Formats: sequence, C-alpha cells, structure tokens
Amino acid sequence: MTAATSSSAYGELCTLFTRLARFDHLSAIAGWDMQTMMPPGGSKARAEALAELSVLRHQLLSAQTTGALLDRAWQETLSDVERANLVEMRRQYDNAVVVPADLVEAKWLAGARCEHAWRVQRPANDWQGFAENLQEVVKLSRQEAQIRAQAAGCGRYDALLAMFEPGLRSSELDRIFADLTTWLPDLLQRVVARQQQEAVLAPQGPFDIERQRQLGLSAMKLLGFNFDAGRVDVSAHPFCGGVPEDVRITTRYNETEFLTALMGIVHETGHARYEQNLPREWLGQPISSARSTAIHESQSLLFEMQLARTEGFLKHLRPLVVAQFGEQPALAEDNFIRLNQQVKPGLIRVNADEVSYPAHIILRYEIEKALIEGDIEVADIPALWNEKMQRYLGLDTVGNYRDGCMQDIHWTDGAFGYFPTYTLGAMYAAQLFNAARQAIPTLDSDIAQGNLTSLFHWLQQNIWQHGSRYPTAELIGNATGEPLNPRYFRQHLESRYL
Amino acid sequence: MTAATSSSAYGELCTLFTRLARFDHLSAIAGWDMQTMMPPGGSKARAEALAELSVLRHQLLSAQTTGALLDRAWQETLSDVERANLVEMRRQYDNAVVVPADLVEAKWLAGARCEHAWRVQRPANDWQGFAENLQEVVKLSRQEAQIRAQAAGCGRYDALLAMFEPGLRSSELDRIFADLTTWLPDLLQRVVARQQQEAVLAPQGPFDIERQRQLGLSAMKLLGFNFDAGRVDVSAHPFCGGVPEDVRITTRYNETEFLTALMGIVHETGHARYEQNLPREWLGQPISSARSTAIHESQSLLFEMQLARTEGFLKHLRPLVVAQFGEQPALAEDNFIRLNQQVKPGLIRVNADEVSYPAHIILRYEIEKALIEGDIEVADIPALWNEKMQRYLGLDTVGNYRDGCMQDIHWTDGAFGYFPTYTLGAMYAAQLFNAARQAIPTLDSDIAQGNLTSLFHWLQQNIWQHGSRYPTAELIGNATGEPLNPRYFRQHLESRYL
Repeated sequence: MTAATSSSAYGELCTLFTRLARFDHLSAIAGWDMQTMMPPGGSKARAEALAELSVLRHQLLSAQTTGALLDRAWQETLSDVERANLVEMRRQYDNAVVVPADLVEAKWLAGARCEHAWRVQRPANDWQGFAENLQEVVKLSRQEAQIRAQAAGCGRYDALLAMFEPGLRSSELDRIFADLTTWLPDLLQRVVARQQQEAVLAPQGPFDIERQRQLGLSAMKLLGFNFDAGRVDVSAHPFCGGVPEDVRITTRYNETEFLTALMGIVHETGHARYEQNLPREWLGQPISSARSTAIHESQSLLFEMQLARTEGFLKHLRPLVVAQFGEQPALAEDNFIRLNQQVKPGLIRVNADEVSYPAHIILRYEIEKALIEGDIEVADIPALWNEKMQRYLGLDTVGNYRDGCMQDIHWTDGAFGYFPTYTLGAMYAAQLFNAARQAIPTLDSDIAQGNLTSLFHWLQQNIWQHGSRYPTAELIGNATGEPLNPRYFRQHLESRYL
Repeated sequence: MTAATSSSAYGELCTLFTRLARFDHLSAIAGWDMQTMMPPGGSKARAEALAELSVLRHQLLSAQTTGALLDRAWQETLSDVERANLVEMRRQYDNAVVVPADLVEAKWLAGARCEHAWRVQRPANDWQGFAENLQEVVKLSRQEAQIRAQAAGCGRYDALLAMFEPGLRSSELDRIFADLTTWLPDLLQRVVARQQQEAVLAPQGPFDIERQRQLGLSAMKLLGFNFDAGRVDVSAHPFCGGVPEDVRITTRYNETEFLTALMGIVHETGHARYEQNLPREWLGQPISSARSTAIHESQSLLFEMQLARTEGFLKHLRPLVVAQFGEQPALAEDNFIRLNQQVKPGLIRVNADEVSYPAHIILRYEIEKALIEGDIEVADIPALWNEKMQRYLGLDTVGNYRDGCMQDIHWTDGAFGYFPTYTLGAMYAAQLFNAARQAIPTLDSDIAQGNLTSLFHWLQQNIWQHGSRYPTAELIGNATGEPLNPRYFRQHLESRYL
C-alpha cells in the first residue's frame, strides 16, 4: 500500500479501512471473550457495546464521503494489487450502504439475545422459548435479504449467500447438491455396510482434561500453529476467532472421549494457519482478509479431513495420543486409523464424518432457503428437520430439538447463507489436496514421514499469501487449473472409504 | 436518568455518554485481555486498536457540539442527581478538550510501547533500554501537564494529580506527607524492634498453584465477590479491570509462598465489590463511576488491611488455607496472625506491609513530581531512588533496577499523579473503618463471628451506592463526619502494631 499517498482518494480509503480494521480487532477480541471468558452477568452490557461499535463501523463505512472517495479512487492510477484492494473496499461499501443502520443494530441485538438464551435453552430442549427469539432474528434477516436482493438484483437468499461467498448463486448450489444426492446416499450405505464387518474398539476413558489440552497443544505444534500469535481455549461452540496477529481457536473437552476435541483442534488449526499466514504487508486492508467462508472452510477441512485422516498422518498423531494416555488396544495403529475413518450417520453435524456431513448441510440449506424466501415459518422447522433427517440419514429427531434443529449457533446470529459453505469447503479441500498431490510428487511419503513442510509451503504459495487478492474462482483456478469441480470430493470419498 | 427526555440537551448528553461507556467497555476488556491472555505477537496490533478507540473517544467527547450541549444543559431544569451527573460530564469534557488528539494518541502509543518492553526489560534488569522508552513517555506527560496546568491555572504536577483525585493539590500532599515523616519512621523502627523479639514461622511450601487458585476463590466468596459478574485470572501486575457488570481481577502465584497472592486477591476484591455495587440505575453515566482513584484504593485497603488483617477475620481465613494445604506449625492460629501482621521493610512496594508502604509512596511522589516539574531527568531516577530508599527504609538498591525504580507499571503508562492516591487510600480506609466501627457497635464481634454483612451494608450505604454523586470531600464527610483526617491512620497503626 506504499505506492499511493494518503493525499490520493485511494490513500484516504486505506486510512479509513485501517481504522475499521482496528475497530474490528476490538470486536473480535471482545467477541472471543464473550464465548470463552465472560461471566453471564456481562452479557447485556457486552452485547450493547459490540452493537455500538458495529453501528459506528457501519456509519463510517457507508458514509457519503466513502462513496465519493471510491468513485474518485477508481479514476486514479493504481497498481494491480491496489486495484484489487479497491474492488474489495467497494464490495464492503456496497454491502454496507444498502442496509440502514437501525436494521444493522436491531439484527445484532436480536442475534445476541437469541444466542445468549440459546446457551440455556438448548440443554433444556426448550424449543418454544428458542422459537420466539429466532422469529425475531428471521424477521430481521428477511428484511435484510429483501433490501440486499433489491440492490443486487438477485433473489433474497442469494443476496445473503453473497455475504459469505461473493458471486455464489443458489442455482449453482442446487446443481451441486442435486448431483451429490445422486451418488452420496448410495456411497454412504455401502461404506456403512462395509465398516459393519470391521470391529473397531472404542478408547476407554476417562481422559483427563488437562492431558487432552496438552495433546491438543502438541497437535497444534505438529501442524505449525504459531503460539506467538494465537492461543487455544474452551467454548461451547468451537470456533476460530481473533485477528491475524492473534488468532484465537477454541475446542470443548469431554472426559469420556478425546477424539472429537482433538480433531476439532486440528480443524480450527487449519483456519488458524490461514489467518496467521495472510499477507502481512497488507494487514488492515480488505485485500489482506481471507477470501471467503468457503475458502476458509477448505483450509480447516484440508487439515482435518484431507490431511489428518490419512494413514500417514495418523501414524504420527498416534504417538502424541499415547504420550498422554498410555497404550491401550484401541490405540493400536490399525484400530486408531479405523477409528478416525469411521463413518456413522448421527444427529450432530459437528461430530459428523465427512461422508454423512453433506446430508446435514443439504438439510439446513433447504430449510434456511425456504425460511428466507418466506415459504416456511420458524414453527415449521422441527417437522421439516425430522422429515429430512429421516430421508437423508435415516434418523429420528422428533421432540429432540437439542440434538436437532437447536444444535447449531448459526441461525441464532442470523447467519443465513453460511451453512452451504461447509460443503463447498469440503469440495475445495479435496480439489486443493489433489492439486497439491500433483504438484508435490513426494506428498504422500512426506506426510508418512511426518514432514508437512511441502504441503504447508504449497498452501502458503497457492492460498494463504493471496488473501483476497483474487476472486474465489480465480484463486482456485490458479491453484488447481480449473474452477470448482465436485469430482475430486467424490474421488476422495470413494478412494478412502470403498 | 429518566426525567430528561433525549430531546433536551441533557438527554442528548446522556446518550453520548452511554455511547462512550460502551466504547470504554471494549477498551476495558481488550485491555484486560492484553494483560492476561494475549500472546506477545498480538501486542502491536492491540496497541494500535486501543489507541484508535481512545482517539475516537477523545474526538466524540471534546467535539464542539458537546461543549454547546453542556452549556445548554446547564440552563435546563434538572434534578440534583442529574445536575451532579452534568458536573461529572463537564469535568470529563474539560479534561479532554484541552489536550490535542494527536498528543492523546502519541502518549497512548508511547505508553503501550514502554509497558510492553518493560515486561522483558524488568526481568533483564535493563535500565538503559527502559530509560529510552520512559524518556518519551515523560516528554509527552510533561507536554500534557503543561497544557492542563495552563488551562486549569495550577501547577503542572497538580494538573496531573487532578486526573486521579479531582481537587487534590500537591501542597496538601506535601503537608500530609511531611506530617507522616515526623512520626512514621520512628513507629516503623519501634515495630520492627518489637517484632524481632517474636519468632514467626514461615509456611513451608511448595504451594500448588491450582490449590492457591481455589483458596483465592474461597476468599473471594467469603468477601462477597459476585461471580456472575466477574472473574479472577493471572497477570504480571495484579489489577482490577473490566466493567461494573463484569469485573476482572488478577493476581500472580508463586509456588514457594501463598500469602502474597491471597492478600492480593483480598485487595482486588475490595476494588471489585466497589465496582460491582456502583449504582446500577446510572450505569453508563459519569455519575455511576467510582469517585476517584484514592476512594477506590480506600476500598481495596479497607478489605486488605483494615478488615483482613484483624485477628477476627484471620481466624476465619485460616481454615480456608488449611483446607487447601493442610495443617503445619506456621498455620497455627497465633503464628498465622503474626504472619499477617508482620512489618518488614523491603524493596518491593506491592509486597510492603502497611507501616512501611507510605515510605514507598513518598519516595515515588517526590521523584515523579520533580520529573514532571522538569527539576530532574529520567537519567537521575536511579540515584535518587537509592538515596531515598536509604533514607526512608535503610535499604540499598544500587544496580538493582528490577527491584528498584523499574518495579512498577505506573510510569510506563505515563500515570504520573497516581502513586499518592495509594497512601490517601490507606488514610481514607482507616477513617472509614473507624466510622463503621462507631456506626456498628457490634462490628468487631460480627467480624470475629465471620459475619461481614454489617460492614458490607455500611460500605454499600456510605460509599458504593453513591458512585460519583458527591465530590470526594463531601462523600467522606457524609460517611465519617469530617474531611480527610490522617489521625485515624496513625491510630490504626499504633493500635495494631505497638
């Protein structure tokens, strides 16, 4: 960002966006604290403080002066990088300017209220209480979708999708998910049938929480997490937050079972390494941000699914487990590998294996799209949820809201349009890992030898260092030689599980 | 704050100050995080983010429109409470408007840089490195003092004092400290001589950190800390931070000795209970804030020194200690009481007993006053420090910067004018405890029976609930029947230690 002086319109915009990034830093840390550290009594004041800052951010970003600067900057002589940054500035501005500040604040507060109550309502299986708060979130999200759709000239749900994955349309998702449903249910059945013939021993606990924490730290170290620029804590819903200079990942521990927390940490470490390796020289500018939610998820799933569940990696992870919990038959190499490649349809998305995971996403996609388009109401969710769980995974959720439609945090905050990016992420991950394998002939033997440098270098070169320099399609095209191609995800599942 | 509508100037000011309080909330939490959670790599970005918000706060507070609103509001019909709130608004505005925004930012950044480096320089005993950063902080603090002094028509150091204790002049401090030096050195010598005849056993460690933490939590519980609205963590320099709805106290543990951490927690719990009991109905408004730094310190010292080192309280604290560490001769009742009433002049202020503590303060007061007035330079500090330590406490600090002039965090942040409030706080604490004893004839037997309700109720009625409703002199006058009177501090020390 050195070429433009601050006397240029572009330079003034850089100053503005640096300022916004600093406010975002405080939001990110206070948001992390809210999930990990804050006692319940702080909830209301925290929500109000964060809402106040989000309103300020919205005002500064969508000010008339910002629009005028963007117009002027477009006429200035800029380098390619600067122009790409300007495009991202414009996108943020366009996204902000169409939504009135009071709607931003109202949605924020309704989301905070709904999420806060959900933390108690979910364990209590209190659907009625939850539905009341969710209705308000849905009402405001529909208003937002309506306003964005009108401005962008697209469908209402598409307008929300674009907030997470710019350029993505639900028509493309419909096509991708329709294709998935032609082969995935059959694959799932075959894998489950095949695995039923194998005996897999479950590790016998209890597994001391402090030892699980040490195990997580050793896995993060193996995966190159930079502890000078981040940390790991506990939250009800694991996430990767903070800022690129100080990435905060979380997990949740359970004394009876350690693999979920461990693989959760591997997943969040994938997110974290992307954040920790975003282009330092552009930090504070929009171009330095992660490309999109789907690309972010591609990095976490590349770590968790593509890398960490290979036999080669598991052979290096196993000694770390044994170092904490000692040997036991379930931790023998063969069994440990089978454990980590088990396919078992279940009620909970975040615990799902990679074969049944897309069913959870398609279900949520169909429901949230209908909800935003106004085809269904909040009260219709439980019945639809049950019907689709029966159809896609053969599971019953009647009356079990806690492990059904109340299991996720996303809708509480009004993050409609987010869920599909999980499965897009899985597809990008498969495609990227395939490309890395092509580019690094020794990749599999590197991993088997515990040498992850070649993979991380490839990711750094092809994804991490680019931030938002290129649109998603171009980033993926440059990295893999073609646009999104779900074929690699299918190939991956078939080669690992059949 | 319900009487005034937001269409009044006063109402508009209430809205503005609520907004500022929300920004302060985020600063407080991000500041707490910086001291307790943040990895080193986050330091630069955090400092920039906090500086950005402090600049914004300064802009909003010192805007011309704020001045105009304050003038208009003064003409409006207001209740007594509202007018007291308006006085506090005006004070904040007057304090802000005189200092240019770039000086605020420069001082903030220099302070953050100096403090951050100090964390490494102090253990390394690196005075040269520290002095370089401190010079910049002093330079900017002198500029600030000069500007404030000119605006207030007072001395430069007095102008900084007023930021911590409105209305306090160094001429009064000179008088109070001069009086102290006439009797305290003699008292100290007599107490030390007397205690040399008593054998006091030191508890034998190691003391497991987790058990120390549990002990701290049980002491906080005994002292009425509200865990729904706060928490305790670890930091290099213990403090009480956060917001009234979510008070964050810290301590630091040492495996070889548990009393320092425990009494540190008792101290911070005194601060915390003041914050947790500030007037809820005014939260967000200036009138809801703690009255001053000295009054804040009076609450922590009332807990730590007046209450917690009485025989009555120590008899109730002892079983909590034994519950964690088991019985040992040093924890026998008589010895435990003597341990907690030991007077031993030492190098470190925060570890000092209440008899030698004022010497640490007078030393710092004399140095920082001369520094701000321009009578000495940063390079002169170590020699002066040593000379005064010799004179007041008979201790040598030559070459020991770490435990000498580099031991405190205050100067790193440019908080000149803060130190004297510690000793004022000790005096207010003695005066308040004496008044409570007059008002509650059963106070000593209540404490001996482990019943602290009457004391907490008296503090709630006389200090906590008033926030900044009254000026310090009026608050203390209402609570004790007279203005600050150092006699009670002397009486307290003489009756406890002679």
